[in-house]
Amino acid sequence: MRSPKSLEFTTSSMAPSAPRLIVPIDLKKKPWEQKLPLHNRWHPQIPPVAEVMAGEYFRVEMVDANGGNIKDDNSSLDVKLIDSSSFHFLSGPIRVLDVDGVPAKPGDLLAVEICNLGPLPGDEWGYTATLDRENGGGFLTDHFPCATKAIWYFEGIYAYSPHIPGVRFPGLTHPGVIGTAPSMELLNIWNERERQLEENGLKTLKLCEVLHSRPLANLPSTKGCHLGKIQQGTPEWERIAREAARTTPGRENGGNCDIKNLSRGSKIYLPVFVDGANLSTGDMHFSQGDGEVSFCGAIEMNGFLELKCEIIRGGMKEYLTPMGPTPLHVNPIFEIGPVEPRFSEWLVFEGISVDESGRQHYLDASVAYKRAVLNAIDYLSKFGYSKEQMYLLLSCCPCEGRISGIVDSPNAVATLAIPTAIFDQDIRPKTKVPVGPRLVRKPDVLRCTYDGNLPTTKNPASIM
Amino acid sequence: MRSPKSLEFTTSSMAPSAPRLIVPIDLKKKPWEQKLPLHNRWHPQIPPVAEVMAGEYFRVEMVDANGGNIKDDNSSLDVKLIDSSSFHFLSGPIRVLDVDGVPAKPGDLLAVEICNLGPLPGDEWGYTATLDRENGGGFLTDHFPCATKAIWYFEGIYAYSPHIPGVRFPGLTHPGVIGTAPSMELLNIWNERERQLEENGLKTLKLCEVLHSRPLANLPSTKGCHLGKIQQGTPEWERIAREAARTTPGRENGGNCDIKNLSRGSKIYLPVFVDGANLSTGDMHFSQGDGEVSFCGAIEMNGFLELKCEIIRGGMKEYLTPMGPTPLHVNPIFEIGPVEPRFSEWLVFEGISVDESGRQHYLDASVAYKRAVLNAIDYLSKFGYSKEQMYLLLSCCPCEGRISGIVDSPNAVATLAIPTAIFDQDIRPKTKVPVGPRLVRKPDVLRCTYDGNLPTTKNPASIM
Amino acid sequence: MRSPKSLEFTTSSMAPSAPRLIVPIDLKKKPWEQKLPLHNRWHPQIPPVAEVMAGEYFRVEMVDANGGNIKDDNSSLDVKLIDSSSFHFLSGPIRVLDVDGVPAKPGDLLAVEICNLGPLPGDEWGYTATLDRENGGGFLTDHFPCATKAIWYFEGIYAYSPHIPGVRFPGLTHPGVIGTAPSMELLNIWNERERQLEENGLKTLKLCEVLHSRPLANLPSTKGCHLGKIQQGTPEWERIAREAARTTPGRENGGNCDIKNLSRGSKIYLPVFVDGANLSTGDMHFSQGDGEVSFCGAIEMNGFLELKCEIIRGGMKEYLTPMGPTPLHVNPIFEIGPVEPRFSEWLVFEGISVDESGRQHYLDASVAYKRAVLNAIDYLSKFGYSKEQMYLLLSCCPCEGRISGIVDSPNAVATLAIPTAIFDQDIRPKTKVPVGPRLVRKPDVLRCTYDGNLPTTKNPASIM
Amino acid sequence: MRSPKSLEFTTSSMAPSAPRLIVPIDLKKKPWEQKLPLHNRWHPQIPPVAEVMAGEYFRVEMVDANGGNIKDDNSSLDVKLIDSSSFHFLSGPIRVLDVDGVPAKPGDLLAVEICNLGPLPGDEWGYTATLDRENGGGFLTDHFPCATKAIWYFEGIYAYSPHIPGVRFPGLTHPGVIGTAPSMELLNIWNERERQLEENGLKTLKLCEVLHSRPLANLPSTKGCHLGKIQQGTPEWERIAREAARTTPGRENGGNCDIKNLSRGSKIYLPVFVDGANLSTGDMHFSQGDGEVSFCGAIEMNGFLELKCEIIRGGMKEYLTPMGPTPLHVNPIFEIGPVEPRFSEWLVFEGISVDESGRQHYLDASVAYKRAVLNAIDYLSKFGYSKEQMYLLLSCCPCEGRISGIVDSPNAVATLAIPTAIFDQDIRPKTKVPVGPRLVRKPDVLRCTYDGNLPTTKNPASIM
Repeated sequence: MRSPKSLEFTTSSMAPSAPRLIVPIDLKKKPWEQKLPLHNRWHPQIPPVAEVMAGEYFRVEMVDANGGNIKDDNSSLDVKLIDSSSFHFLSGPIRVLDVDGVPAKPGDLLAVEICNLGPLPGDEWGYTATLDRENGGGFLTDHFPCATKAIWYFEGIYAYSPHIPGVRFPGLTHPGVIGTAPSMELLNIWNERERQLEENGLKTLKLCEVLHSRPLANLPSTKGCHLGKIQQGTPEWERIAREAARTTPGRENGGNCDIKNLSRGSKIYLPVFVDGANLSTGDMHFSQGDGEVSFCGAIEMNGFLELKCEIIRGGMKEYLTPMGPTPLHVNPIFEIGPVEPRFSEWLVFEGISVDESGRQHYLDASVAYKRAVLNAIDYLSKFGYSKEQMYLLLSCCPCEGRISGIVDSPNAVATLAIPTAIFDQDIRPKTKVPVGPRLVRKPDVLRCTYDGNLPTTKNPASIM
Repeated sequence: MRSPKSLEFTTSSMAPSAPRLIVPIDLKKKPWEQKLPLHNRWHPQIPPVAEVMAGEYFRVEMVDANGGNIKDDNSSLDVKLIDSSSFHFLSGPIRVLDVDGVPAKPGDLLAVEICNLGPLPGDEWGYTATLDRENGGGFLTDHFPCATKAIWYFEGIYAYSPHIPGVRFPGLTHPGVIGTAPSMELLNIWNERERQLEENGLKTLKLCEVLHSRPLANLPSTKGCHLGKIQQGTPEWERIAREAARTTPGRENGGNCDIKNLSRGSKIYLPVFVDGANLSTGDMHFSQGDGEVSFCGAIEMNGFLELKCEIIRGGMKEYLTPMGPTPLHVNPIFEIGPVEPRFSEWLVFEGISVDESGRQHYLDASVAYKRAVLNAIDYLSKFGYSKEQMYLLLSCCPCEGRISGIVDSPNAVATLAIPTAIFDQDIRPKTKVPVGPRLVRKPDVLRCTYDGNLPTTKNPASIM
Repeated sequence: MRSPKSLEFTTSSMAPSAPRLIVPIDLKKKPWEQKLPLHNRWHPQIPPVAEVMAGEYFRVEMVDANGGNIKDDNSSLDVKLIDSSSFHFLSGPIRVLDVDGVPAKPGDLLAVEICNLGPLPGDEWGYTATLDRENGGGFLTDHFPCATKAIWYFEGIYAYSPHIPGVRFPGLTHPGVIGTAPSMELLNIWNERERQLEENGLKTLKLCEVLHSRPLANLPSTKGCHLGKIQQGTPEWERIAREAARTTPGRENGGNCDIKNLSRGSKIYLPVFVDGANLSTGDMHFSQGDGEVSFCGAIEMNGFLELKCEIIRGGMKEYLTPMGPTPLHVNPIFEIGPVEPRFSEWLVFEGISVDESGRQHYLDASVAYKRAVLNAIDYLSKFGYSKEQMYLLLSCCPCEGRISGIVDSPNAVATLAIPTAIFDQDIRPKTKVPVGPRLVRKPDVLRCTYDGNLPTTKNPASIM
Repeated sequence: MRSPKSLEFTTSSMAPSAPRLIVPIDLKKKPWEQKLPLHNRWHPQIPPVAEVMAGEYFRVEMVDANGGNIKDDNSSLDVKLIDSSSFHFLSGPIRVLDVDGVPAKPGDLLAVEICNLGPLPGDEWGYTATLDRENGGGFLTDHFPCATKAIWYFEGIYAYSPHIPGVRFPGLTHPGVIGTAPSMELLNIWNERERQLEENGLKTLKLCEVLHSRPLANLPSTKGCHLGKIQQGTPEWERIAREAARTTPGRENGGNCDIKNLSRGSKIYLPVFVDGANLSTGDMHFSQGDGEVSFCGAIEMNGFLELKCEIIRGGMKEYLTPMGPTPLHVNPIFEIGPVEPRFSEWLVFEGISVDESGRQHYLDASVAYKRAVLNAIDYLSKFGYSKEQMYLLLSCCPCEGRISGIVDSPNAVATLAIPTAIFDQDIRPKTKVPVGPRLVRKPDVLRCTYDGNLPTTKNPASIM
């Protein structure tokens, strides 16, 4: 560990000044074979694999969201066949102590600063995908039910894809998942409320007629479960695996919040629910658009984080107000860092809460955002891209999804702002409309067939 | 009208170079008494009051959203008693011709550039309010059912309020409403879908248990209706007033989209549905946060716009893809301007789609955003502000509301980012927690009682 | 005067909330015929024309740098013949008192916040010019000895010129001149050091072989002198006119510092040398590039400022450290405002301190900047512009001039960064070089002949 | 080498996607002992050590400007004793070919994109120093004649120094030196003009009375010379060493231009003077302020660049206009990248071309900038810092040095803008002046004595 630099030293030092690597990754091994085995569930009893002190500068390496199962190859079959029960292999848990060696306590806030991050050296690539509709789908799965994939290569800050020619952009790299371990009480709350949704939701929820990704919730399952140092097949493993929460949604502990702005220099204030905080992180994204609409939709990659933690004693009570039945119903707070890519020109698409059939919804921002994204895809497809290319692009490029109006009944207004500089052509509307069809550029994204029976959403206007 | 500057002139010119004022406002008169009377409904047959040419630089003046009924005084009674049937007095319609005198045609796009805007000279003030729950309420009306009001004074780019001490910020000024006239076909679509929502929605919509502003939709009504040059009481007025759409929601024609980034230098591409486009605008906002959460929630003011229009012939087909039963189901496109206020430090609050009772919703961005706003209000109230102050502040300051995650079932993740520089104190969490209560600053927002019977949403955790 | 809003008022107010206009301008009158006559010299005994209180929000109107002598017409003869002895008609002096009525005192700092500014309503135009070499010239007068002029028209935040087609940009509007009155002691210091330069400089200064604008300094002269309320021809006028400093250079009191970033929301901390501070301001610029290279080189216009002042008692000693023979040898401090135009793409030109003849200079940033500007002009002239157009453009567009390296003997490195978005074409170098000459666009800037005898600087390389 | 991704591949690839490392550095070896030995002179006959193709993505590692002679230890003696004859060990030359294997030719432009850069992994530290006045000094060496040193440690994007407590900032990392090899003709021009300056300058240059770093120019010398693959002591080495230009100044080929904005995503267009271009680079800076005022004044470090090159055939003629006696008198062009640290609040200090003795100079931007830097140091020293700390800080933090006015005779106006967010206290002037001295924080920068005889510049005002 690197201690704060002593200022009274008298010998020449040339001291090691690198962050301490506390969770290493060997890309030639499976996630569960790592020296410090990864986990893909949330549970208070997953034992820490490392310990850090407040103020210490340390490094964590991570595998990509799918644990190496999606390849840099010429097919999207791996996406179609992906086992969604084992998403999000996480590095950690990391136990956090103060400088006196006292661990973080429930009720504290854990301030985590992201000093640096990036892909693993020698492994500068990633992928964006949308799942088959039978396997989870994505935000627009009723329009795009097929599994698709695009590979991205990185050139320093930039990413480009052979499957989406004519586009190159700087990444706003961030971890999709970062969170503390839940207490048993919080875990029970999660499992109970999500079970109720899964059991009763479909028939009562109007939104399910518009948003088609399924299941409604991912409940605990032993299938695909990995619990770090807890040996699979032991009674302990069986018990915990049946209780442990899936990593798909963001929750009170942070988790898979997929906030694209958690990049270099940002700071996250996480509530602490168990002794030592037990911080876990994973699901690195080279870049992501607001909403991560294609689901497997950031530029997913293996990567590293370099972090510093501070403990704010009693900070949950001081800074977070619970809103719900218990004091555990809280959410993290963030500060945004100073080195986000800077764009000055944005083209903005709007959606209102009227669905594709023309039906009016009531202040529904999810429906409005779906329309905004559909509008953007259709617009961009007029410039020589396929709609599937644009669906993946808007999922992973640094675009901004905003709730612009949420009070003007009955329409919520959502907007999607796209930085025009990521394209190698001027995509703004022009007064002089060019005549004739634009050349479609090849190749396209890698694509499988959809073999299920669910109908796609037809755009009634498209045949006119 | 100012023509494009001739370059062959030979005499000293000192030509008038101001924009042509095409819709003047006299603040001493009511909206319907203006020289060019205002309108507060959308209908194809409201006659134009002015004509402009493509490329011409012109100026439109507007009254505030409530037509002068909210005063710079010491009471919020005017807010409580406001007649919501006459919101949004609009300036226009403005008929747009090309340089050959041919009007914009259905199927064209109207590109409107906002060259300049601001309050009316000598009238540099505005207000932010939330309506009484019986009178429309706001995004959080179940938490804040009372009518409240804060007055803001402008010092150039800055606004400050005697009712929210310790806060001052530069405005991102924009028109809340800008849109073209609908065709009869489009108008009928609006009226039909909103009527269906109003009639059937409450019992079928889960979201109504979380969002409490009512009615679900505002249907046409002759009450409070103003139709510009069409004389009230005439048979024509009666007919149109019964058909004309209310201005509350944003729709296919633009309208009350309340997009805070439509400021200086932005460009709006509006679909044209009737001959001449018939552009109308109003509801000037000195500043607004994403969502405009308190409903009457921007800094509402009288103001002016200086505009230039271009006609993109056939642009709807070229650039917009309808999504819905007809080719009219489209939405406008925008470009953002280059002079937005620049903030480098943001504190971000997160919400997930679990409501205040702890119930799980399915990918519901509206619920998630409600939680994010509640989290922010609670947090800021720890720094010496009342919750009502922060509710109004987050409605009108340049904060950003984002849909961060919309695919991680069952939780949508929404975030609210607040620029820290608008406060005169450091509002970030600190490692050393200060001891003891912070001094509450006075005065507070102007506030009425809530005299209705609807229950407020209790935060179960707040009594612990 | 508008007092801080009383919060106990009980009557409906609709109070006037505009800034108090303390210096009005009537554009039909000459600068010296104004109701509050303007002045164009610095002297402690020019009497104040208005009084403001600390915290008060007030408005000052100003004429352009040349007092209306440059016209919006078809000739640059007015530029060629301009009388340089009467530049910079200033509005003021304004006497500043604290809330108890005690004036600012020598040794205080005067904090001036620029809340708003702009052209005078109805007068939205300006000009950029370079003077004839015999009449002052400009930074590159040895290359461009002729008087030239371009007229600019404003469309809100944007300016465009019929004389420089293909360019349009948002202004970073600011006052070229803002300063406090000098004390007699400071005035004597100025006059003495500038007289010495003028008398001895030419023969001793190496830089004079590279920079050719003359005279070296502008000493006090009764010619063209205007002293506000002091009647011309009186003995008092005669005495003061012979002592009063010219306004050309920025000095210890601020003055003509031509800092382009003093725009909306910025704050200036000016030292106070006389009772009441006696603030004067003028020379409004719609926009200016760093260096204002063509001399009359911003977009010069009539305009207004809306200001607030605070007095920091004893602030000179607390915040400024004199550097020189007396405690008066100080400089103002500034804060930059939050709404500058935002550009994300810049093309940067470099210059080193080797002059056009190939001679090496020693760490000379002025020579290096001259080369950077020459390089930029030559580069841009390859895209269809005349060099004269680009000279004026780089003088007035929001380009940034930086001292990048000042220690690497013998070369200073200066850079000039130009926002690419101001052009209607892509001006970046491209891998595929287009073949054949680019079309020169017409018309050009207005241009006079140079009738003097001084040689121009020939570029030895240009004939190869 | 990684070739452009073939799109017809049919086998699973997991291809190596890292940049090809073409110049490795072993920090345990001296610069001249590296596998590919470094060079510290410019000469056309220094042979290339590596070859790259246009479009290839490659990595270059570099040692710090002093080749490892400045240590992370507790003394600045190494700075005092540094041998200035061997500065700037450069990695390269790198020969650049097009995709057909044809090398870049004289007259081409070499477009170099900086995709990524940073410190060498495991070596995250740097230093800022100012040299002893007898050994080169710095911009303010007459005020600060002693050798001083501050060590910086990096935490990802951030740097902090135990020697300058209370300051932490994100770096704008860049190479100080990047350039192509000169032709013999260009080299002769350099040597001749610098020799003339060195021989005649001191007595003729007024600026030498204000700027005291010496010598005026660094002429070729065999002492400390390293020429890459050319063996020391051979006749070839002797000849080239006597001719080869020193690396201190930026020149026509780029070189030590010390432009702080050449960071991630920027693009440099370098003229090509010899076959293959022979690109060399070195002198990595974690961060630098405009001017690099303390001379060894960036945060100097070992580091790496990841680059891509394109060749623009005939680009010199197409895009660069020579200005001088030969077609070789050109300068590079740059584009700035999209991920610079973003600051919204700046405090700005102004300087005019009046020197410390009160003497007036004529439009001298170097003198004006010296005053601006002195003003900033004095100001900041009132907040608990030593002047030596602030001298080093302003040399290495991302502050901006601008030529604001260069035409208002006799004063040039230069400004230095400092981002306020880098300090852990509010450094802006305040209306309520705090009473009593501020606590000076310890420790200070490492400092040696100055043992020379040259007088320091006394500030006449400081004793008042």
